[in-house]
Amino acid sequence: MAIVKIDAVGGYEGQSVTICGWLTHKRSSGRIRFLMLRDGTGTIQATLIKGETNEHALDLYSELLQESSLAVTGTVRRDKRAPGGYEILVSDVEAFQVADTYPIAPKEHGVGFLMDHRHLWLRSSRQWAILHVRHTVINAARRFFDDQGFTLLDAPILTGASCEGTTTLFETDYFGDRKAYLSQSGQLYMEAGAMAFGKVYCCGPTFRAEKSKTRRHLTEFWMIEPEVAFADLETIMKLAEALIVAIVEEVLKTRQQELHLLERDITRIEKIRPPFYVISYDEALQILKDAGESLPWGEDFGGSQETIVSNHFDKPVLIHRYPAQIKAFYMKNDPDRSEVALCLDVLAPEGYGEIIGGGQREDDTAILKEKIEEAELLAEDFKWYLDLRRYGSVPHAGFGLGIERTVAWLCGLEHVRESIPFPRLMDRLYP
Amino acid sequence: MAIVKIDAVGGYEGQSVTICGWLTHKRSSGRIRFLMLRDGTGTIQATLIKGETNEHALDLYSELLQESSLAVTGTVRRDKRAPGGYEILVSDVEAFQVADTYPIAPKEHGVGFLMDHRHLWLRSSRQWAILHVRHTVINAARRFFDDQGFTLLDAPILTGASCEGTTTLFETDYFGDRKAYLSQSGQLYMEAGAMAFGKVYCCGPTFRAEKSKTRRHLTEFWMIEPEVAFADLETIMKLAEALIVAIVEEVLKTRQQELHLLERDITRIEKIRPPFYVISYDEALQILKDAGESLPWGEDFGGSQETIVSNHFDKPVLIHRYPAQIKAFYMKNDPDRSEVALCLDVLAPEGYGEIIGGGQREDDTAILKEKIEEAELLAEDFKWYLDLRRYGSVPHAGFGLGIERTVAWLCGLEHVRESIPFPRLMDRLYP
Repeated sequence: MAIVKIDAVGGYEGQSVTICGWLTHKRSSGRIRFLMLRDGTGTIQATLIKGETNEHALDLYSELLQESSLAVTGTVRRDKRAPGGYEILVSDVEAFQVADTYPIAPKEHGVGFLMDHRHLWLRSSRQWAILHVRHTVINAARRFFDDQGFTLLDAPILTGASCEGTTTLFETDYFGDRKAYLSQSGQLYMEAGAMAFGKVYCCGPTFRAEKSKTRRHLTEFWMIEPEVAFADLETIMKLAEALIVAIVEEVLKTRQQELHLLERDITRIEKIRPPFYVISYDEALQILKDAGESLPWGEDFGGSQETIVSNHFDKPVLIHRYPAQIKAFYMKNDPDRSEVALCLDVLAPEGYGEIIGGGQREDDTAILKEKIEEAELLAEDFKWYLDLRRYGSVPHAGFGLGIERTVAWLCGLEHVRESIPFPRLMDRLYP
Repeated sequence: MAIVKIDAVGGYEGQSVTICGWLTHKRSSGRIRFLMLRDGTGTIQATLIKGETNEHALDLYSELLQESSLAVTGTVRRDKRAPGGYEILVSDVEAFQVADTYPIAPKEHGVGFLMDHRHLWLRSSRQWAILHVRHTVINAARRFFDDQGFTLLDAPILTGASCEGTTTLFETDYFGDRKAYLSQSGQLYMEAGAMAFGKVYCCGPTFRAEKSKTRRHLTEFWMIEPEVAFADLETIMKLAEALIVAIVEEVLKTRQQELHLLERDITRIEKIRPPFYVISYDEALQILKDAGESLPWGEDFGGSQETIVSNHFDKPVLIHRYPAQIKAFYMKNDPDRSEVALCLDVLAPEGYGEIIGGGQREDDTAILKEKIEEAELLAEDFKWYLDLRRYGSVPHAGFGLGIERTVAWLCGLEHVRESIPFPRLMDRLYP
C-alpha cells in the first residue's frame, strides 16, 4: 500500500493508497460521511460509505474531533467538484490519536487568543498560505543574489559594540566580563565582506528593543542585506528594483493558490513591473505638502507620512537623498550637495511602508572618523570598521530588505505579526 | 570600456577592459612590472611595460602597497602560465586609494592577531576558499530540503523558556518585565511546524554560553534543522545520510578550486558515498573498549571518545540508541528497550566529531508531561509543546546539522573558528 501525500494523489487514480494527515472537519449527508483531511501539502475529502468502508472506520467516525491524526486508506477517485480534483473512497481509517477538543473553533477569535495558540494557529489554511509565501520570498531573494555571484556571508548576531546607541538594543552578559548586544543589522560586517569577496549578502534575524506597538514592528525580524564593492547609489537603486521584481515574479509564478486563499487582489501584485518610481526626499516633501501634511525640511517621515507617499503610487517608490542629519553616521554625503546623504528607502505600495533601507557608505577615513566622533560612538569599537577605509577603500553601497514587511505587503496582511512563524513583540514572547 | 570581473576576462581576449580590485602583491623583473590583483571572483596578473603602459601608471607602481584599491585598464591576453589562464597588458592604472601598510604580512601570524584582524583576514585566499565552501554547504542543504517539499519555517531566537537549563543560555532583559533567552535549537518550534506543514526546516544561528575552549565549540553557530511528521528514527537516519551526500556532492562539483587551495585531500571526500556506517551506542562502546578506552554503559562520549570512534571509519558513522538518561527530555524511548532513546548522532570521519544530532520525539502526552517534571522544567513554559500531543499527536522525528563543523570537516580545518565569517568564542567578541 502506497503512503502518499495529498498533492500527489493524482498519480494514483483508481488505486488504493493511504494518506496520513489531520482532520480539519467532518460532516455527514444521509448515510454518507465525509472527513476533510490536511497533511501540509493540501486538503482532500475522504468519503465513508457503508459497504465500501469497514465497520471499524464507520464507528470511529463519530469519535473523531478536529485535528485528530489519521491514516486513511481508500481508492483515489477523480472528482471535479472536490477541492484538489480528487477524493478518497475510504476502506479503512486508523487514528494515531483522537484529539482533545480543539481550542481554535471555526468562529472568530481575538488576536491575543490566536497569538497564545500560535503553535496551533499555524495549522489554519490562512497561516499555511502566508508562510508558504514567506518561504518563497526568502528563497527568491537568496537565489537572486546567488545567481548574480554574491557570496553568502552570515553576519554575527552577538556584537561587542552598539552601533546606533544602546536604547533599542537587547544586551546580554558575555561570560561575566563584558556586555554583548544583539545585532540590529549585518551591514558593517557586510562592508568588510564586500572588500574581500566583491559582492556579499547575509540573511538572518535582527533585533530591535523598540518600545513601539505598531502594525509594522517586530522585536525580532529577518533581513537580507547585500553589499557591493565598486558600487554607488545608482548601482544599488537598480539592484533594489531588480530584487523586488525577482521576488514578485517568483511569488506570482509559484504561489497563486496561496494568494487566492488569502483573497489577495492579485492584479495589484501583477502591476509590480519595472521601472519603479524614483523621487528625492524633497519631492516626497512636496507630495506631503500637496496632501496637506507639510513637514519641515530635515525631518524624518513617520509611518503615517510613509503611507501618504506610498499611496500616491501603484508600484514601489524609491526615495533617495534624505537629509544627512537624520541618517546614520556611515552614510556618505552627496558631494554635490553635502546636506543630503546618498541614501535610499523603498516604500511598498498600498501603505505597507519601508521595505528597503540603504545607501552608499562613507569611504573616506578622515570623514568617517569625524562622523563616529560626532555620533559619540567609541572610536575603539570601530577601529576595525575604519580599517576597511585604510586598506583599499573603494566606493561601496548596499541595503537591507525586511522580509516580514515584504511578506505582509505581498499577502495583503493588516499586521506584520502573521508574516513570521513565531512573532516576537513587546508583549509577546510565548509560545 | 567594459568593466569586467576577473572570472569573466576570458570572454574579452584581445580587448581592452578595466578591472577593479585590490593589490595582493607586486614584483618587478628587469624593466617589466607586475601587479597581482584580486576582486573577489579570482586573481589576475597585470603586466606594466614601458611603451605599452602610460607614465602615470609606471610612476604609481612604486607607491602602491598591498591592498591598495585599483582600476587597471589594459588588453586581455591568453597566457597558459598565468593562474586563471589570462593576464592584462596594462595601459593605465588609477588608484581609488593607496593603502596604509597592511598589517597582515605574508609571514606567519599568531591566531590571536589574525582573529583581531578578522575583517582583513577574510581577504586571504584561504579564508576566501573556506567561506565559499560554507556558502555551498548552506545552499546545498537548503536546496536539499526545498526539493523534497519541506517548508522553510524560521524558528524564533528569543524564547521565554529555558529548554535545557539556564547555565548555558545567554539571557537578556525583555522590556523590563521578564527574561528572554537566546535559542539553543529551533527543534521544539519545528515540531509545531511539522504538525502544520508535514515537513519543515529552519536554518539560523543558535547560541551556547558554554565555558568550553575546544576546537569544536563556538558560542554562536548555525544549524539547519529538519522535522518530519509521520516519521520514525529509521526515516530520519536515511534523511541524514541523504543530506550529507547531497552536500558533499555539491561541494565536490562546484568547489574543486577551493578544496585545492586548502590543500584538502580530496580523495577522502570523494569516498563519502552511501551507505554510511550504522552502529548502536553499545557497538560504539565496544569500539572504545577495543581501543583501550572503556567507558561504563550509560555515560556520554566526550570529544576524545568521538574521535576514537570516528577514526574507526572512513565515512560518517550513524550512532543510534544512546542511553535515555543522557538524552534530552523530548526524546522517545525505544518501546522494545526502554533504557535507550530512539536518537541519532552522526560523527564525521577524521575526528571531526558530531555533525548531526537528532531522533524521534516523545509523542505521548502523559509520558512527555512526566519527563518535563523529571527534568524539573516549568510545566507552564511547555504548555504549548504539550498541546502538540493533545491535538493530533503523530510519530515524528528530526535532527540538526551543525554548519560550522560540517564546513570544518569538508575543508579539513584544525579549528572550527575559521568556518564562520565572524567567530564568537568565550574570549572573542571583536570585530
